[in-house]
Amino acid sequence: MELWFTEKHTEHVKFSIQVDKQLYSGQSEFQRIDIFDSPEFGKFLTLDGYMMLTEKDEFIYHEMIVHVPMAVHPLAKRVLVIGGGDGGAVRELTRYLGIERIDLVEIDRQVVDVCRKYLPQTAGRLDDPRVSIHYEDGLKFVRAEENVYDLIIVDSTDPFGPGEGLFTKEFYGNCFKALKEDGLMVNQQESPFYPVDAIAMQRAHKRIVDSFPVSRVYQAHIPTYPSGHWLFGFASKKYHPTEDFDASAWMKLGLKTRYYNPKIHIGAFALPNYVKTLLEEVEPGR
Amino acid sequence: MELWFTEKHTEHVKFSIQVDKQLYSGQSEFQRIDIFDSPEFGKFLTLDGYMMLTEKDEFIYHEMIVHVPMAVHPLAKRVLVIGGGDGGAVRELTRYLGIERIDLVEIDRQVVDVCRKYLPQTAGRLDDPRVSIHYEDGLKFVRAEENVYDLIIVDSTDPFGPGEGLFTKEFYGNCFKALKEDGLMVNQQESPFYPVDAIAMQRAHKRIVDSFPVSRVYQAHIPTYPSGHWLFGFASKKYHPTEDFDASAWMKLGLKTRYYNPKIHIGAFALPNYVKTLLEEVEPGR
Repeated sequence: MELWFTEKHTEHVKFSIQVDKQLYSGQSEFQRIDIFDSPEFGKFLTLDGYMMLTEKDEFIYHEMIVHVPMAVHPLAKRVLVIGGGDGGAVRELTRYLGIERIDLVEIDRQVVDVCRKYLPQTAGRLDDPRVSIHYEDGLKFVRAEENVYDLIIVDSTDPFGPGEGLFTKEFYGNCFKALKEDGLMVNQQESPFYPVDAIAMQRAHKRIVDSFPVSRVYQAHIPTYPSGHWLFGFASKKYHPTEDFDASAWMKLGLKTRYYNPKIHIGAFALPNYVKTLLEEVEPGR
Repeated sequence: MELWFTEKHTEHVKFSIQVDKQLYSGQSEFQRIDIFDSPEFGKFLTLDGYMMLTEKDEFIYHEMIVHVPMAVHPLAKRVLVIGGGDGGAVRELTRYLGIERIDLVEIDRQVVDVCRKYLPQTAGRLDDPRVSIHYEDGLKFVRAEENVYDLIIVDSTDPFGPGEGLFTKEFYGNCFKALKEDGLMVNQQESPFYPVDAIAMQRAHKRIVDSFPVSRVYQAHIPTYPSGHWLFGFASKKYHPTEDFDASAWMKLGLKTRYYNPKIHIGAFALPNYVKTLLEEVEPGR
């Protein structure tokens, strides 16, 4: 017998992973949640049939969504993670001893419960005493906060379904308001390669540019996401992502990483011309 | 009716592209050659069922295998391309007016003929008067040359089947001999992500390190290759790939590119820690 998980990366492109067995399948109030075990990627989590993370390559996504902003703002003490119920971003954040408090706002309690049970690799640090989990809508949560956070990490699903509100202009504006005067925000921002994803990326970028004085895009190689070329948004009130980045200060922290390093930090902001063109289309004079 | 081309990226991972129709299928003396047309990627070429190039993303591979070495050695006059019968590397090379002669050594004449007919996007510059095509075994061709080339581009298939000899120590040693005293060589070097590819990458890197005083690895996002994270080897007698790279000199050439730019050049050599570890395993003290 052969069992294969297949995700359509576009209408005309499929990515398939052989599965040993399905470990969990459930329907929450918000979405379908599945956990599979696979020979190539270890355990992996899907939401509504879309790949969220695999044990083999989640380190790339989580290191890049956390260490890039933390290396620019190493004095961050209070961090908000929106989405990210798998705990991977929180795990990387807890490695910074200077962080005093992490608020994790995940709309779907069932995602956290399932990840705690099946994915201790990512969820294992959710019990850190600095972490508070709020089972709420991130859009509503952030609306109520003002001048509180040093860093907001938007670790959302795709810009449709439960994650849709986390790609709106209102949401980015509220994140701006919730940040301190030198605060910054990063978000997962889809892929530039397939037109269907690139349009979502452009729309998100336009809205962030309209909300923050500093707005850049960076990239990583994430093999299990569509095209493998994944983008993150870096939005900031004050700090520039490469000019205000102190490589030696980050190195002194002594954090062991498997993807991120200071050269990757700089290289991640070096975008291919075709990606720069997509950004210029929504940000004239970039 | 739905028609899908599927490639196994590993025993447990499949990548599938919907096909409008098969335009060509033939068996040469060396390999099976197919051309398909697809809604997402345009026309694409496979050899023995492995993806070689698609019209949509071939620019990434060909720009990165040509402009990186040319930007380090802009005075290159005589270039050897081994493999690359699709003509994509030659197309990028012909844009440099300083290049006086390009030798293309392709073992399989049928690949060139099929690409001329179905893929003018890549093969269209094979008629440039500076190009000489040799239908020979690259391993034998390079053995006979000494102190002739400024640049050798090894645009091979995977390290099994017809391309196998282009990953041997003897071949790299002969490339060294065929290069002038300031010459350099680049090669496609597989992916670091899946263990089956990473082993081939490590083996090639070890052999190049043993043959050249300067040996580095660089990367690009190529969505239709396994994992999307693709590596190239940069081997040189004299020039360092980033320290001897003059960004403003390259910019003055005025070449329009869709992926490559001087910041990408530097960023491409910034490797993730896990890739650096793989290289250190075969190159102690790196």
